[in-house]
Amino acid sequence: MINILFAAKPERWPTYEAPLRAALKAANIEAQLAQDIAPDQVDYIVYAPNSDLQDFMPYTRAKAVLNLWAGVEQITGNETLKIPLARMVDPGLTKGMVEWVTGHVMRYHLGMDAHIVNPSHEWKIKTPPLAQEREVVIFGLGALGTACAKVLLGLGFRVTGWSRSAKDVAGVTCLHGDEGFGEALRRAEIAVTLLPDTPATTDIFNAKTLGQMPHGSFLINPGRGPLIDDDALIAALDSGRIAHATLDVFRTEPLPKEHPFWAHPQVTVTPHIAAETRASTASEVIVENIKRGEQGAPFINLVDRTLGY
Amino acid sequence: MINILFAAKPERWPTYEAPLRAALKAANIEAQLAQDIAPDQVDYIVYAPNSDLQDFMPYTRAKAVLNLWAGVEQITGNETLKIPLARMVDPGLTKGMVEWVTGHVMRYHLGMDAHIVNPSHEWKIKTPPLAQEREVVIFGLGALGTACAKVLLGLGFRVTGWSRSAKDVAGVTCLHGDEGFGEALRRAEIAVTLLPDTPATTDIFNAKTLGQMPHGSFLINPGRGPLIDDDALIAALDSGRIAHATLDVFRTEPLPKEHPFWAHPQVTVTPHIAAETRASTASEVIVENIKRGEQGAPFINLVDRTLGY
Repeated sequence: MINILFAAKPERWPTYEAPLRAALKAANIEAQLAQDIAPDQVDYIVYAPNSDLQDFMPYTRAKAVLNLWAGVEQITGNETLKIPLARMVDPGLTKGMVEWVTGHVMRYHLGMDAHIVNPSHEWKIKTPPLAQEREVVIFGLGALGTACAKVLLGLGFRVTGWSRSAKDVAGVTCLHGDEGFGEALRRAEIAVTLLPDTPATTDIFNAKTLGQMPHGSFLINPGRGPLIDDDALIAALDSGRIAHATLDVFRTEPLPKEHPFWAHPQVTVTPHIAAETRASTASEVIVENIKRGEQGAPFINLVDRTLGY
Repeated sequence: MINILFAAKPERWPTYEAPLRAALKAANIEAQLAQDIAPDQVDYIVYAPNSDLQDFMPYTRAKAVLNLWAGVEQITGNETLKIPLARMVDPGLTKGMVEWVTGHVMRYHLGMDAHIVNPSHEWKIKTPPLAQEREVVIFGLGALGTACAKVLLGLGFRVTGWSRSAKDVAGVTCLHGDEGFGEALRRAEIAVTLLPDTPATTDIFNAKTLGQMPHGSFLINPGRGPLIDDDALIAALDSGRIAHATLDVFRTEPLPKEHPFWAHPQVTVTPHIAAETRASTASEVIVENIKRGEQGAPFINLVDRTLGY
């Protein structure tokens, strides 16, 4: 019998208990899975860095710490942690991002909101263009941006991608660098922002650059809050340059109650849900590592603590 | 110089003029395109059955009547029409249907409405399942249903299709007949109804069958109004059996102002927009036939007036 300690915040237990048990069962692993096990009896620690468990010394028999988060920066410096640490690389996170982006692109493309909120009960036909007549620009062609671009291409959209350095994605018009940025903005009937948060991308969507987007365009930000100059976006919405924005990430989260995005009629706020670890797929990754530990096989997604990731 | 008469309702002219001219130009056809040409000078008639033009006898030189509608039942009996009649088979219509269905499936899948309409500005995280954990059932596996099923499958959904007689669509769980109908209903977390309107399908979604769907399921009807027993649907919405419905077609259209669907908080009405002829793609089909007529090649989408379609 293997003993698996669940050492994330107690409020995460209802989310993970059933998927972890299901994944263990699917892998034919008999195990005790609990939030409270005597430290010297624990074989594996399913972990979140905000857990109360910060001293790993009493876990003398544990073979690995299996992190539920992609981020490990809060734990790599912990001197009491001597056993292997695996970060979460969740295939469900990418899938969820692609689904969220696809859904909101389709929503803007079809003009759904006018039907969802139609208090005067108007039967008003306004035919949208076909996807093949609509240009979507993905800013950022990393793993997530590229995955989104491919699915939108498959739905028939004209897809342009912009990245800092040159990339090549089949079927996607790839622009790059400062010289390609203006062209990407001018094409962006619907813009999806998936750039990393770096000094070069802070406020990259500002009064000047938003002003280069087509009149009446749509902005979807599942990437990072600081990409957008909030005041400039509100001005662009008020002028009609940007018809509507859907924002999933913010400089301060949860978005403060007094932030003007909440009440703005042309803004939809979603609560940082586009890129979420999914309990079902994450549990499968955790159990894969337990299986490997029991078989003496190398763990996947191991963190090199000298590098910090 | 070819003379092309546009003989649909005048209010359709602004929609079609530019796409028709663009398609003619793309095909290198020099032509006069107008709403008023002396009948004996007309070479082709771009037509809609609700046009004022009902006597074709004066159009002595015309080579074909090119219908803008798929439906020709109002014109096949016209004794004055002796020249070839082509119906509209618009690839844009299928594409538009697939996009509308995909958009509303994604909307329900992601629970978008809770963010689009969020008057209390709640930052409330509710993670949807991944598409691979969500079952969508397409009722009706004709050309439109099959096209929708394939795209939803490509987005990762588990897709079941139901049809009167047995069908086979790769990757789709195909059920059929009365014996498969109950199973299809039980699987339908999201139901898309694309059945034809026949005596056998009238009120096929009624109190009994809606009651077999999962509690809290979603219904999307871009097919035909009479498929649904309206009163039974409202009862199923009120009981929570159906969480929400998006309806594009109705027994009476436009949907009368007093119909309870308009004000029901769990119903979205769209104004029969899912299956629309698109001016851009339809114009290409019209011009293809003009090109064929000029080359002496056989027309496409010809109506056999002895059969009536």
